[in-house]
Amino acid sequence: MHEILIGEYLFLRLKEIGIQTVFGVPGDFELALLDLIEPLGLSWIGTPNELIGAYAADGYARVKGAGAVVTTFGPGELSALCGLGGAYCENVPVLHIVGYPTTQAQKSGKILHHTLGDGSYDHYNKMSSELSCATAVLKDPSMAVAEIDRVLNAMLYHSKPGYIGISEDVAYTKVSTEYLDTQIVRSLPPSAADSETKAVAEVIRVLESAKSPILVIDGGAARPSWAEHINPLIETLKIPSFSTVMGKGAADESSPYYHGVYSGAGSCPSGVIKAVDESDCILWLGNLPSDFNTGMFTNHVENTTIIDLQRFSVTIGTTEFDACINHVLPKLIEAFKSHAQLPQLKVNPVPTPDTTAVLPEKIEQDWLWDRMTSFLRAGDLVISETGTCQIGITATRFPSGCEGWTQAVYGSIGYAAGAAAGASIASKETGRFKRVVLVTGEGSLQLTAQAFSLLNRHGIVPVVFVANNKGYTVERYFRGWNASYNDVPMWDYSALFKAFSPDVPDAKGFKVHTAAELDALMSDPEFNSATYPQCVDMVMDYEDAPLAMKAVFEEKKRSSHRG
Amino acid sequence: MHEILIGEYLFLRLKEIGIQTVFGVPGDFELALLDLIEPLGLSWIGTPNELIGAYAADGYARVKGAGAVVTTFGPGELSALCGLGGAYCENVPVLHIVGYPTTQAQKSGKILHHTLGDGSYDHYNKMSSELSCATAVLKDPSMAVAEIDRVLNAMLYHSKPGYIGISEDVAYTKVSTEYLDTQIVRSLPPSAADSETKAVAEVIRVLESAKSPILVIDGGAARPSWAEHINPLIETLKIPSFSTVMGKGAADESSPYYHGVYSGAGSCPSGVIKAVDESDCILWLGNLPSDFNTGMFTNHVENTTIIDLQRFSVTIGTTEFDACINHVLPKLIEAFKSHAQLPQLKVNPVPTPDTTAVLPEKIEQDWLWDRMTSFLRAGDLVISETGTCQIGITATRFPSGCEGWTQAVYGSIGYAAGAAAGASIASKETGRFKRVVLVTGEGSLQLTAQAFSLLNRHGIVPVVFVANNKGYTVERYFRGWNASYNDVPMWDYSALFKAFSPDVPDAKGFKVHTAAELDALMSDPEFNSATYPQCVDMVMDYEDAPLAMKAVFEEKKRSSHRG
Repeated sequence: MHEILIGEYLFLRLKEIGIQTVFGVPGDFELALLDLIEPLGLSWIGTPNELIGAYAADGYARVKGAGAVVTTFGPGELSALCGLGGAYCENVPVLHIVGYPTTQAQKSGKILHHTLGDGSYDHYNKMSSELSCATAVLKDPSMAVAEIDRVLNAMLYHSKPGYIGISEDVAYTKVSTEYLDTQIVRSLPPSAADSETKAVAEVIRVLESAKSPILVIDGGAARPSWAEHINPLIETLKIPSFSTVMGKGAADESSPYYHGVYSGAGSCPSGVIKAVDESDCILWLGNLPSDFNTGMFTNHVENTTIIDLQRFSVTIGTTEFDACINHVLPKLIEAFKSHAQLPQLKVNPVPTPDTTAVLPEKIEQDWLWDRMTSFLRAGDLVISETGTCQIGITATRFPSGCEGWTQAVYGSIGYAAGAAAGASIASKETGRFKRVVLVTGEGSLQLTAQAFSLLNRHGIVPVVFVANNKGYTVERYFRGWNASYNDVPMWDYSALFKAFSPDVPDAKGFKVHTAAELDALMSDPEFNSATYPQCVDMVMDYEDAPLAMKAVFEEKKRSSHRG
Repeated sequence: MHEILIGEYLFLRLKEIGIQTVFGVPGDFELALLDLIEPLGLSWIGTPNELIGAYAADGYARVKGAGAVVTTFGPGELSALCGLGGAYCENVPVLHIVGYPTTQAQKSGKILHHTLGDGSYDHYNKMSSELSCATAVLKDPSMAVAEIDRVLNAMLYHSKPGYIGISEDVAYTKVSTEYLDTQIVRSLPPSAADSETKAVAEVIRVLESAKSPILVIDGGAARPSWAEHINPLIETLKIPSFSTVMGKGAADESSPYYHGVYSGAGSCPSGVIKAVDESDCILWLGNLPSDFNTGMFTNHVENTTIIDLQRFSVTIGTTEFDACINHVLPKLIEAFKSHAQLPQLKVNPVPTPDTTAVLPEKIEQDWLWDRMTSFLRAGDLVISETGTCQIGITATRFPSGCEGWTQAVYGSIGYAAGAAAGASIASKETGRFKRVVLVTGEGSLQLTAQAFSLLNRHGIVPVVFVANNKGYTVERYFRGWNASYNDVPMWDYSALFKAFSPDVPDAKGFKVHTAAELDALMSDPEFNSATYPQCVDMVMDYEDAPLAMKAVFEEKKRSSHRG
């Protein structure tokens, strides 16, 4: 019988589910565990702090299917919680591994550092259980492998974070390698076969009986796990297709059937809202009707038949099928091939950007997001931060082969910089994306600015655009237009980008004040083909906002006057 | 009847308990609340992120008696939790105010941003309850003022964090000002009078029957709340006095009765351990026997009579009195004045630094902490980060009028930079300290480096010393001497210090590589009298460590070989 350490078992399981790099911050309770990572052929990337580690693991997981962050008991794990909360909310399978004090120490009642000083070791586990689909603190080595497998299986099944607390003594206890013979279940098991078939048949029947069916690609139901089916579906159904804010970046936007982002009053182009309102039937992938994802609930789909595809159900009106979007989509594509074309709702074509237009003086929001369209190219992964960037990017038409996402529901400012670092590492491993483009406001970036130290290293070459407009512009739209609490202090982002990596002399920081400067930079072949990390500090007007954002807040004002 | 808003009521209560500045990060659920702060004469200081906000509130509270941090529901509050955990562990009264979605929104079941997407609004409150002595989410306006008072009274009574969730609709509901007529209880109520008197009599009896009584000043039992009695006690008892790591910086170290830091094998000077071992009776103020506070449990006080003064008890052997350290200390001082001098344990005098000694080439740890002694002066507040700085500073003898602390028990790296910012603001308000000196390792600083953006502003003029030694040296002593996980990437700290505040041209960053350079800088009158913020990046050897740290790890190795 061959034996391995339980800690090795854990990391081999991570390897099995596609995790090649583990993120985190060391602490003495986890050092012995970290010693096991590299000999198993995995990589460790230390992150400047735990929150950035959790965000990086989230970004990594969205590219590779799963991610992991290791922190130390107490301060370390608590610092990561906001990142895990976002992963829970947005269905990203991230394993949080926490290095615990030894089981002997836990029993001793002595006051160890990182405890709350009250002799209890259960506080933190209880806290994480609110943000995890499964948790386990490994205390009994004979149960450890079963517990690890339980958490990992739950994490992949629900596509939510899991939590494993492991101490050095447990991590260094030996177990038989035979436990590895049973595999972790990486794909969702099929539902009762006729349930899926019935659901597919009913979806087709409802679509065919509609006068103007459309497709809406949303971001719920663990989007990355079924994203591969989106473009084949569009090409098969050949009906007008739209993204939500959260779904943006999953579809091939060069498709003639793709018409833009549906977000209520904040739809982009604005004609989209009319098209969706006129449709009598929406095939909705991963519907997640949150405020930020619906133009602050300014969408109106009450009188429309919605075919709602979710992770564990297909619902049409009041009928619910026990069927999973991951399995239904390929079956639907296959089944529909033999069917006649569906009726076509006429949608105005997306206006082509007027490349002869005179440049504005300042870097105006609407100009910027339009200009971004021709900057992006196949192989790009665009990560947009909550706030004006999240809304602004809906006006950017991604070229074929360019993907992207934003944390639209959880909306944690500071997320995107960490996630972009993790996504860059994952992209480098898989070769799936050639370049990561991060677009963030400076107010958000301030929370996790030291993510520059990751973005600047590890052989990745991201391009970071910082919308530097004196603070939290989206908050100003809510309240406090000129309130000082909506200002952030002035930082020198291009200098910061360099100061976080004096050992990476190639890294470049730019500061641009005008549209002409930014346009020239974005047209510069060297900038476009750079093999080093780059950061562009874009000085912008704090009163400016994307058209879609203005439209949402105007509509909200109108409806509150009405109501 | 006069009326005020519940939100105003909350901030007036904060003002009443001595809070002049509120820290935090804005979010749309809390903006209406923030509008109330400045009209009431309080100040708002936006922090780069919530963790730094919580640390700042902790540092502020240790100077002023209470602190507050405001965050937004969900991501904002979760990001602050590590800071609140530290405050819980180390008995610091910090109020965490969380801006909640409206009560109507909470009832609606709609998916709002910052929620976990499951319609529940209770997750975060439950999590914070693990780290708070009292929590309240204000849902019923008619109960709100009672709930606010309950949380604040509990916070000051236990000297632990409290949590208040408040939505805009509740914050803007009016209540009578009459509720303010009853005051928040800021001092601990006296115990049954004879209980305190009996305790004091018994303490004196036990001290007088001892052959070699000593005093140990520790950091438990909410040290700032009874610190004013420490020096009068030393001057009255006239017995050898020592600090622990956590108690360091509370006593006047120029007193002839003060002999250094007791920390088991890590005692400093090293003769302290012998003196304490020889004592047969220890009057111990705020005993908190955690690993980091006892030289990793290398202290040996098993056969000594310990008079243990805690927040709610005095324990001598097996006898416990219902008496509070805050009340017992002044009574003990008063009662002892008529008593004869206690027997004196002979303690070797603290060696005087040899100012004629040749400077080492490199910035060696033992030279540094000795050199720091003559750099410090009356009016300084020294905040030392967990790790080598926390241990190293025990070798620095503070001049009279110089105080300081370290987060010795919770040991969250990154704490000190945020705490130093909050302490600087509090010191400016009170005039209690003229200068804040932050000593931190660069590995710790990386977690919260954007605290530079606070330290650089707000009219404060701290001096920051960064022990830049390639990573987590204290972790290397635990494990992984040359492991890459104990390295941190190279940053340019003096450039960062500047880049975080291009609008503060006076701020200065220095980088020193040798002891001679640092010595010259520390002797420079301009550096000493600077009226602008300063940061000193000290390049140090990663294999070097303070003598006390080496001694602890050697003793641990010896005892594990023995055991």
